[in-house]
Amino acid sequence: MVNKNFGFGTQIRKSPFFDSTVKWGATGFSVYNHMYIPRDFGSPEKNFWNLINSAILCDVAVERQVEITGPDAYKFIQLLTPRDLSKLAIGQCKYVLIVNNEGGILNDPVLLRLAKNHFWLSLADSDILFWAQGVAINSGLDVKIIEPDVSPLQLQGPNSGEIMVKLFGESIKDLKYYWLREINLDGIPLVISRTGWSSELGYELYLRDCSKGNELWEKIMSVGKNYGLQPGHTSSIRRIEGGMLSYHADADINTNPFEIGLDRLVNLDTNINFIGKEALKKIKQEGIKRKQVGLEIHCDILKGPNTNFWPLFSNGKKIGKVTSAVYSPRLKKNIALAMIDIEYSKINIELEVQINDEKIKCIIVEKPFFDHKKKITSSSI
Amino acid sequence: MVNKNFGFGTQIRKSPFFDSTVKWGATGFSVYNHMYIPRDFGSPEKNFWNLINSAILCDVAVERQVEITGPDAYKFIQLLTPRDLSKLAIGQCKYVLIVNNEGGILNDPVLLRLAKNHFWLSLADSDILFWAQGVAINSGLDVKIIEPDVSPLQLQGPNSGEIMVKLFGESIKDLKYYWLREINLDGIPLVISRTGWSSELGYELYLRDCSKGNELWEKIMSVGKNYGLQPGHTSSIRRIEGGMLSYHADADINTNPFEIGLDRLVNLDTNINFIGKEALKKIKQEGIKRKQVGLEIHCDILKGPNTNFWPLFSNGKKIGKVTSAVYSPRLKKNIALAMIDIEYSKINIELEVQINDEKIKCIIVEKPFFDHKKKITSSSI
Repeated sequence: MVNKNFGFGTQIRKSPFFDSTVKWGATGFSVYNHMYIPRDFGSPEKNFWNLINSAILCDVAVERQVEITGPDAYKFIQLLTPRDLSKLAIGQCKYVLIVNNEGGILNDPVLLRLAKNHFWLSLADSDILFWAQGVAINSGLDVKIIEPDVSPLQLQGPNSGEIMVKLFGESIKDLKYYWLREINLDGIPLVISRTGWSSELGYELYLRDCSKGNELWEKIMSVGKNYGLQPGHTSSIRRIEGGMLSYHADADINTNPFEIGLDRLVNLDTNINFIGKEALKKIKQEGIKRKQVGLEIHCDILKGPNTNFWPLFSNGKKIGKVTSAVYSPRLKKNIALAMIDIEYSKINIELEVQINDEKIKCIIVEKPFFDHKKKITSSSI
Repeated sequence: MVNKNFGFGTQIRKSPFFDSTVKWGATGFSVYNHMYIPRDFGSPEKNFWNLINSAILCDVAVERQVEITGPDAYKFIQLLTPRDLSKLAIGQCKYVLIVNNEGGILNDPVLLRLAKNHFWLSLADSDILFWAQGVAINSGLDVKIIEPDVSPLQLQGPNSGEIMVKLFGESIKDLKYYWLREINLDGIPLVISRTGWSSELGYELYLRDCSKGNELWEKIMSVGKNYGLQPGHTSSIRRIEGGMLSYHADADINTNPFEIGLDRLVNLDTNINFIGKEALKKIKQEGIKRKQVGLEIHCDILKGPNTNFWPLFSNGKKIGKVTSAVYSPRLKKNIALAMIDIEYSKINIELEVQINDEKIKCIIVEKPFFDHKKKITSSSI
């Protein structure tokens, strides 16, 4: 049972939406960026169907923002990511990787450009605030790097567009995939972007005043009632179907962008300067030694996501690990993301995965497992 | 109920001692440095008495290490902390603060010096690995910064010395407070230090091979049986009695060392160069505006630690917040650490604290609340 006194102390923060999520049925929480995130509103399968059939509202205040401002903010943000930002317009977002000097992945945030020299990094689970402040120390660049009072919600699912129209009017239909807009909703200051972590049509609403969390939550739920909106949480099922990355699970500081197939986020052939460029050039030249693949696991329905990295074998030889696995009730299959030795990474190769003490057959398949062309998220509303 | 499949996925790591802690009765976990930490073996009060009357073994693998090596490692580590390290011997440890360029606290680790240019930072809950790697980028210093395969246990309490003698022989008695030793225990590679987070006599055992976690745990529990050793967790009661800091709760990036009374960890009057020096000089000159104090709260026995920051009032004016509060069954008092405006920070000042919707009287008292001279931890064994 969850109540207001939930937790072991004040060491882990509560989100501005915490009380609302408890009121609306959150029964389990995880921790992400030193803050509680609701991860259980009953059945994860029901949450999945809610997401793909109507819409869910998710408290993702844990996606803390790193705000970079100052005269050299643009120069600095380009230093932080291998993705070429020269075409990033004001009002646009980009999915980027942050890598260290060795090309190892530190985070995979969404970057938002609010003004010429005003950026937010909307973070996965790691202290990029510290990384950025550390990099700035001797950079010679004039920047201010803070964590602002910003807490996002995700409104995701096919009905999210209609709910957004009800909330913000018809003009919201003009908001394109990976663009943002600053909006005030009855006195609640927001940034809205057409982004998310669901592989479905969706929006993020960045609350800019933490005292108004419950007010915003109730307002959205109230408008969403007629559109089947349910309280929910980011869906492991849907994100694995979509082949989306969960930092720490599918990638970490020892993973490079090429291993997870994110070459498109690494622009080595320009004259831009960024941290990790030399290392990534070298990795690319030498070729990667392991690679992320999709797997189907041929056993009974998995009861939940794997909570350990499951070792993978080929003829008894350990050749990798399953990083994220789940049963998809839509595909009626156990699907997984795995990191394996490059020579075993071709489609249709059969392997064995060890789950607890049992060895089970699995086969490498194409990913993403659903909506291969990723058309759903970017469709018009 | 906790079982091997505990968790929402692989995004949060399990400690090398995870299976043992579950076997030995852990029923609740928190998250710290992206890893599960057991925080519940039944009654927190019983855990407290076990700690102060006999000994407890705590899985603190979450205290991840940042290892700094390379020809400039010493120079670099001095850059990271305001504490003068010129007298830090090989084999010695120091409690240090890591601050950013504005003097804000990023972590309060124990620093271990294993060799001339070989250091570990044994961390509180934040990604100092990222901070250190970021700072290194343009530092011009030749260092290697990684997270090594090291997972600490804490063996704490008055009987911990005898248990250590049984495990490692009489010579362990020579290990002085805040010194370390490299030891191999029947094939298990360890570093041992006389440190901890309990304000009691205690040791930390840094396991250097994560495949041997359960073996080490069982070995210690087996030897400890005759000395009343119990599985346990870091005690909020004892650490608040001792006025010890919990990062994120009692201090964060917006707290400076002077506000929490840790002036002794800031050496401004030397010619050493460290990050934040100018900012800290300025703060010291101008004087701090708020300060950490100890409080006694005059209400019924608190049922557990506060899970929100409780606002503090003087004649209806908000003047601060309670950061950590708990009932001490030994002192038979509700005690707390609080951060308050400097003009209200004197001993014996009476204030009001708001707990949920009630306003309750409290009074500022000396801290630490027990063992004022901090003699217990540093006593001979």
